[in-house]
Amino acid sequence: MSVTTKAITETSFYVRYAETDAMGVVHHASYLVYLEEGRSHYSREHGYSYAQFEQDGFFLMVTEVTVQYKRVARYGQQLTVRTWLESLKSRSLVFGYEVIDHATQSLHVTATSAHICMSKEGQIVRLPQAFTQQLQLVKRIS
Amino acid sequence: MSVTTKAITETSFYVRYAETDAMGVVHHASYLVYLEEGRSHYSREHGYSYAQFEQDGFFLMVTEVTVQYKRVARYGQQLTVRTWLESLKSRSLVFGYEVIDHATQSLHVTATSAHICMSKEGQIVRLPQAFTQQLQLVKRIS
Amino acid sequence: MSVTTKAITETSFYVRYAETDAMGVVHHASYLVYLEEGRSHYSREHGYSYAQFEQDGFFLMVTEVTVQYKRVARYGQQLTVRTWLESLKSRSLVFGYEVIDHATQSLHVTATSAHICMSKEGQIVRLPQAFTQQLQLVKRIS
Amino acid sequence: MSVTTKAITETSFYVRYAETDAMGVVHHASYLVYLEEGRSHYSREHGYSYAQFEQDGFFLMVTEVTVQYKRVARYGQQLTVRTWLESLKSRSLVFGYEVIDHATQSLHVTATSAHICMSKEGQIVRLPQAFTQQLQLVKRIS
Repeated sequence: MSVTTKAITETSFYVRYAETDAMGVVHHASYLVYLEEGRSHYSREHGYSYAQFEQDGFFLMVTEVTVQYKRVARYGQQLTVRTWLESLKSRSLVFGYEVIDHATQSLHVTATSAHICMSKEGQIVRLPQAFTQQLQLVKRIS
Repeated sequence: MSVTTKAITETSFYVRYAETDAMGVVHHASYLVYLEEGRSHYSREHGYSYAQFEQDGFFLMVTEVTVQYKRVARYGQQLTVRTWLESLKSRSLVFGYEVIDHATQSLHVTATSAHICMSKEGQIVRLPQAFTQQLQLVKRIS
Repeated sequence: MSVTTKAITETSFYVRYAETDAMGVVHHASYLVYLEEGRSHYSREHGYSYAQFEQDGFFLMVTEVTVQYKRVARYGQQLTVRTWLESLKSRSLVFGYEVIDHATQSLHVTATSAHICMSKEGQIVRLPQAFTQQLQLVKRIS
Repeated sequence: MSVTTKAITETSFYVRYAETDAMGVVHHASYLVYLEEGRSHYSREHGYSYAQFEQDGFFLMVTEVTVQYKRVARYGQQLTVRTWLESLKSRSLVFGYEVIDHATQSLHVTATSAHICMSKEGQIVRLPQAFTQQLQLVKRIS
């Protein structure tokens, strides 16, 4: 999957006051919530929401996250999370992210999150084909 | 101030996974963050954002909150916060809220939050007139 | 139930950085998490933990919270939550709380939370007798 | 710095209900708050609290975090964060962490966080010597 064809979804929102800390900026843990909403948006936009995924009896457990913080963000600022599928295997996948300023497009955060597919019974299982097919759709989504 | 003339703003968003708890529903503390975003939206829509308010040297400290929980909400559900100015005095104000389902309009939460105006130096001060004038604008905002 | 006989439990902890906001103080929603930990501690100390309660097939849904904020708290400050049973009915109960400074005992927050007992199937049911008996134990717990 | 001489601090706490999510386990972002409390505890135990550090005019900005999730944790479980100084330079430092079960010592999470030292004015500056000296104390702290 080349950069030119990969699907990237973008979702924008205002920084909430509760997401800031005593430094006056967005707390570093808040970005994990933004990334999570980025992949929620990604799956909704690809036509197979994560809510549906769980109703179908599966979970995506987080096995690793890496986050690089480049620039602070503040309350009221409008941020955009750009999300894409970095890699996909039979039982696991990795999402890539950028968090940018909505207006200036300046880069705030780059990140990845790795996940394995679990059944309700707690077993590591194959990702359902319907899900992986939807997630790989490469038409540009706005 | 009658129902027909008060300004009510509405902001909608998807429930984020991090906002749920082990009961499988939105954690009751998450609604305080929704209400806060409701009043952020209210002030933005009225042309005097709370971010501006703080830059002008003021804070709105929360002095009381009351929340009635009517119905649980779940991950992926789209909620709407309806926010209005319940009362306004020289140094304090009260916001009223409803959190409803975006699609069905069913009621999830009713709430109020009371605030006093503080200066940067920590003194209780009068609300700046420019702010109170903007907040009272009664034209319907969507 | 008189003040002289009611059981009050106390649990202390340091304010975490993530619990503060851009005002430099503990965010008002963080106190709901403190109260929740207060009642978790209350039930553990009374010999019937809330974790056990859920394993036994019940949930305590929050139906209402009221919080009065008296004084701000800051990162690194050690706080104590004092928790007691305010009232108890067959299907519902109310907890009362004070959040105080651990060292000076100065009062930061007073609060109440009301709850109803739900079965796993989502029905409102009677509180299990073993639970209510344990929760009403009046010997002083430290 | 060898394993035998490095200082490791340990702080233990109960998982709070608000820290869980709809999977029934601790949300992956909650661990960043645990790690932060781990380094707060580390600096308190070394005699130069992070609260003092900020009062002295400095901030430790997070520049990177990496977290590996090995095992889920649940509400009411008692966890321990083990924290140590992984590396130290003139303007930056890296903390290492393990989150383990308090009772069984089983490993839940391994992590690192990198930080740079900022002045109140937003400039990258040298870590104050008093701070770095305290943080490197190698006597075993329990």
